[in-house]
Amino acid sequence: MRVLINTPAAGNSPGEWFPVTTNVEWVVENYTDNKPAAESLRGVDVLVGTDFTQEMGAASDSLRAICVPAAGMDRIDPAAVPDGCAVTNAYAHEAPIAEWVMACAVAMDHELFKSERSFRYGSWEMWPSRHGSYRELMGRTFGIVGLGAIGKRVAKLATAYDMKVTAAGRRPEQRPEAEAAGIEYEPGRAGLERVMAESDFVLVSTPLNALTAGLIGDAELRLMKPASYILNPARGHIIDETALYEALAERRIAGAAIDTWYDYPKSRDDAPRPASHPFWELDNLIMTPHHSGATEGTRTRRAKVVAENIDRLSRGEPLVNVVTGLSRA
Amino acid sequence: MRVLINTPAAGNSPGEWFPVTTNVEWVVENYTDNKPAAESLRGVDVLVGTDFTQEMGAASDSLRAICVPAAGMDRIDPAAVPDGCAVTNAYAHEAPIAEWVMACAVAMDHELFKSERSFRYGSWEMWPSRHGSYRELMGRTFGIVGLGAIGKRVAKLATAYDMKVTAAGRRPEQRPEAEAAGIEYEPGRAGLERVMAESDFVLVSTPLNALTAGLIGDAELRLMKPASYILNPARGHIIDETALYEALAERRIAGAAIDTWYDYPKSRDDAPRPASHPFWELDNLIMTPHHSGATEGTRTRRAKVVAENIDRLSRGEPLVNVVTGLSRA
Repeated sequence: MRVLINTPAAGNSPGEWFPVTTNVEWVVENYTDNKPAAESLRGVDVLVGTDFTQEMGAASDSLRAICVPAAGMDRIDPAAVPDGCAVTNAYAHEAPIAEWVMACAVAMDHELFKSERSFRYGSWEMWPSRHGSYRELMGRTFGIVGLGAIGKRVAKLATAYDMKVTAAGRRPEQRPEAEAAGIEYEPGRAGLERVMAESDFVLVSTPLNALTAGLIGDAELRLMKPASYILNPARGHIIDETALYEALAERRIAGAAIDTWYDYPKSRDDAPRPASHPFWELDNLIMTPHHSGATEGTRTRRAKVVAENIDRLSRGEPLVNVVTGLSRA
Repeated sequence: MRVLINTPAAGNSPGEWFPVTTNVEWVVENYTDNKPAAESLRGVDVLVGTDFTQEMGAASDSLRAICVPAAGMDRIDPAAVPDGCAVTNAYAHEAPIAEWVMACAVAMDHELFKSERSFRYGSWEMWPSRHGSYRELMGRTFGIVGLGAIGKRVAKLATAYDMKVTAAGRRPEQRPEAEAAGIEYEPGRAGLERVMAESDFVLVSTPLNALTAGLIGDAELRLMKPASYILNPARGHIIDETALYEALAERRIAGAAIDTWYDYPKSRDDAPRPASHPFWELDNLIMTPHHSGATEGTRTRRAKVVAENIDRLSRGEPLVNVVTGLSRA
């Protein structure tokens, strides 16, 4: 079994990283421009990586599985995947992402970034006797767009904070499970509009695909209350960039916490600005470079899923976490 | 019933703020130097405020209750309280304080402040492909020193994050309740040492009194693991200032989140540095000016407790939240 590793997660010792029981010949491709050279793909059974292009598909002569050691499939071109080659992904990131979400919600609500900077520089302006009262999460509403693993984990935490949780999604059949967890759930466009209009915090937690690209645009942001916040640890392009920038710059919403962006480094030394509008000039935004789910725990849990699929392929068993119905904007 | 208001919380309309049903004559004292002039106290039945001194005690000729609209009693001099005068306090701050605690825990663990600043300035150094993996709360240990209202609320949230919770306190009789909530509890010195040594996050949530002043000093901080954090939303002087500064400056612990301090403004325009050591030069510290519990919700909930006690006193009924056994270092 020949396995090509095209992800920085494994370093140079994939055998230590991926706990397989099968005998595997590892090929490690330096992760420079996000895709391996075509010749590396020859004779490979399994590709472990986040990217798959037409060029890579054309160079694959024996590929049986693409194991994405991440949740997002938006850099896998489904048209490039060879016939009979399975594509699997791996989640296990919902706990740290939900930690980031709740922390950013409190940080915005309690003005933690402003307070810390100001107090560190010597001012008591944020002291309650001078600033007045702050807000608190308890009793407010967390709205969730896309009730998958991340959305459910945030719902669990928000419920522990004694918040109301409301959610929208694609699937009407999710309602009983959601309601059993105390989550108000409404599918489709009506649900999305209700979540945008009623929530104090809106979490974007859908995958990026043809249905969700630009799902939250100017019209949807204009449904939000002026005191509300939006948080996006999912994928940048689910929210229209210009609409988000204008809502923040014109202070039509109170703020945003954004972990996923519109532009990323394309090579080792590349450092582009993450958007074409100057988000970094806004003071009502928390911006982080796509690390909400990137923990040691996530890496370990995902490596186990990849290893299990390599073992299953070797034994001729059905794979887990197979992604079906890939579609692209 | 004459009620003297000596707290900025009420503004100039205490009748709107404190929902009493009794007929009350309100006297509002400007909150400038934290204590009312002696002559204001004459003929007063109830004082609503956080400060009580020997001078105030000597000037009180008819005081029946001091209603502190806060939890901390450390600015009430018990020796000054006239015979027969009750002292009550009000909590209701545990929800927002627990929000601050969990947000600071994640912010330190996920390096949110550093990441935000660095990414805003244009760097991708904190991107996982360049920075490597982050940490996550899930599976780690939250240790709680003082299992009162704040400690229990943090324990509830930490449990929702799938953390282990361990606590120490004064009272052996708390153990069954703690264990029923999934909290490992050990009273006394042994419990304190275990919490300091075993926890990834240590929460300080005791009142400040003769037993707790300096409770956490150099010896206790040296029990902590190098990768652990300490959080103090309780009262500054529970942790020895010099010992805390040195533990952080020498990086013997990973970091701290401190909301309560060693020095505060003493008059309207005063703006002292909050400590004698330069905490503000440390990069492994989140520092906020005592606002973790100062929310609109806390104010409303506390005003209801104060109003209820004014009504109870007027009707000759026993007061609620009476503080007994005040002691002072």
